[in-house]
Amino acid sequence: MLTTPAYAAATAAAPLAPFTIERREPRANEVLIEILYCGVCHSDIHQARDEWGGSIFPMVPGHEIVGRVAQLGAGVDRFQLGDAVGVGCFVDSCRSCAQCRAGEEQYCESGMSGTYNSHERGADGRFDRTRPTYGGYATRITVDQAYVLRIPEALPLDRAAPLLCAGITTYSPLKHFGVKAGDAVAVVGLGGLGHMAVKIARAMGAQVTVLSTSEAKRAAALELGAHEFAATGDPATFKAHAKRFDLILDTVSAPHDYNAYLGLLKFDGTMVLLGIPEQPAPVAAGALIMQRRKLGGSLIGGIRETQEMLDFCAQHGIAADIELIAIDRINEAYERMLKADVRYRFVIDIASLRDGAGA
Amino acid sequence: MLTTPAYAAATAAAPLAPFTIERREPRANEVLIEILYCGVCHSDIHQARDEWGGSIFPMVPGHEIVGRVAQLGAGVDRFQLGDAVGVGCFVDSCRSCAQCRAGEEQYCESGMSGTYNSHERGADGRFDRTRPTYGGYATRITVDQAYVLRIPEALPLDRAAPLLCAGITTYSPLKHFGVKAGDAVAVVGLGGLGHMAVKIARAMGAQVTVLSTSEAKRAAALELGAHEFAATGDPATFKAHAKRFDLILDTVSAPHDYNAYLGLLKFDGTMVLLGIPEQPAPVAAGALIMQRRKLGGSLIGGIRETQEMLDFCAQHGIAADIELIAIDRINEAYERMLKADVRYRFVIDIASLRDGAGA
Repeated sequence: MLTTPAYAAATAAAPLAPFTIERREPRANEVLIEILYCGVCHSDIHQARDEWGGSIFPMVPGHEIVGRVAQLGAGVDRFQLGDAVGVGCFVDSCRSCAQCRAGEEQYCESGMSGTYNSHERGADGRFDRTRPTYGGYATRITVDQAYVLRIPEALPLDRAAPLLCAGITTYSPLKHFGVKAGDAVAVVGLGGLGHMAVKIARAMGAQVTVLSTSEAKRAAALELGAHEFAATGDPATFKAHAKRFDLILDTVSAPHDYNAYLGLLKFDGTMVLLGIPEQPAPVAAGALIMQRRKLGGSLIGGIRETQEMLDFCAQHGIAADIELIAIDRINEAYERMLKADVRYRFVIDIASLRDGAGA
Repeated sequence: MLTTPAYAAATAAAPLAPFTIERREPRANEVLIEILYCGVCHSDIHQARDEWGGSIFPMVPGHEIVGRVAQLGAGVDRFQLGDAVGVGCFVDSCRSCAQCRAGEEQYCESGMSGTYNSHERGADGRFDRTRPTYGGYATRITVDQAYVLRIPEALPLDRAAPLLCAGITTYSPLKHFGVKAGDAVAVVGLGGLGHMAVKIARAMGAQVTVLSTSEAKRAAALELGAHEFAATGDPATFKAHAKRFDLILDTVSAPHDYNAYLGLLKFDGTMVLLGIPEQPAPVAAGALIMQRRKLGGSLIGGIRETQEMLDFCAQHGIAADIELIAIDRINEAYERMLKADVRYRFVIDIASLRDGAGA
């Protein structure tokens, strides 16, 4: 076993603090990755504070991992030593259900093995409850090559990290719901997910409008590539843009009126929920029936599609806008994220952990 | 003008009573239809009692009309005298918007001209607010041939009437959402819409399950062609059928828990709302996100698709199960419908109006 510096939450009430975990030497199909960068996702906070229930402690968060292959299992054929690689929100799945076979492992019938706050699996594909998973706030991780992504050379490694969650979470619904050049796409909310949605939708050729509560984000939205901005705090917005969009990507987790946004969809349009508000929100059947609209949801993306997204981003020169931090600033980063005070993603420079800050 | 016996609601509080309307001689592209049968839709009650607001009185309800062509405009080329024809929920639309051009006139940008409780249009395609539309509780109607359906010979005319609303309302989403042989389809509610949904889905080759509150409808559901029945009053139903259906047609207007039903959809499944509860109902984002489910809505169907549905029903020997009534029993029929005491659709025998009961 490889003794590995990490940062962990000991309990739901504890701040993140230095911690040591063991990573295994790679088995036949596994690679050991020296982690260089790890993005900080809002779900890290939810889980570290047990806001969704069922959290497993001690917890080492982090599922936007980028690093380099440092050791190869005997059967590894997809990677070589030194390759720039990524790990996203999951590190395993049952591999036998219809969704796994279709490359949509994130919807695995028995549940994916999350990169952290979850459990690894035995050879039979079942969860092994004795082996919790630990995420990317650590210097190393050992992962089956089937769940490892290749980071194209054109991408800066630090700015690529958030693509593994924020990037694929927005890319997948844009692809699945068939966005094509000229389509009118609205992005609700301009945080970590929203800013990636704007960049990717724009690169797909869509006409992109950012919908955000206040005028304050107008300049930032246009700078990111949005064609238009509309403030949802102004009721006139919902009249001016009525029946206008083919697709709405709703990245907001705070409570908001789904029906108002559904009214912005044109005939046969779809609104896709990516955020999960704490409480269910009322939906008026008439808002769906009258223009045959759809309200959908989408969860990250499968391994194949995540690779496709990374290649797409490299091809279009897209990466996340980030603020690089040392690991010892993680608790402060969480507080700033709760105030939406980040443009647009914190990424931990894991060198700060390797240098001894963490152990 | 043709003086025409009808039944009308004088106000939202008044029962339906004999009334006389004027129908015009057909213009170039119009046909005059001698009405034989008119189905009684639940929305007739809602509108006659102004429960949706904005009702236009006096109101002659009825949008499940079957009759025979009695007079032809000079330019009519699609019908001949004596043809069995139908008129559904609308008699005109703008004819120029994207939806009208696509044959989805029910989603017309400026709104369809409802068969009743609406207005006719001028030559410019705009509503003429001086000309209210009157529906099928009358002996005649004059309609543009572009909005008239052909009733195939194989269909009994009385039992064909409800196809014009209940039939197309269920056929259209089954087609639009791509139901194919072997798909698992659930029908929620077994009223006028639900019983047609069962017959049509079965004829499409789907594996059909009826979900209804109580066991009381089990025998009827199976008799109509459902493969299975499950009582939604039993919480075990929602576990036993979890992640099972490709498509759920929800025909219920009473308040119910959308999230419980969404849990019955398999990966990429869709639940389609056909009923409009009085209040919006809470939707949990997680119920949509976790299996990439969709919640949609669907509104009747276009003229082309309605004809396709009629031909499909004729080909498969499908018609509505009805209770034929004389027009003077319409108020009693409404009361029974409010108690769900009808299997499954009242149809007015318009002969009873022509014989003098109505004027």
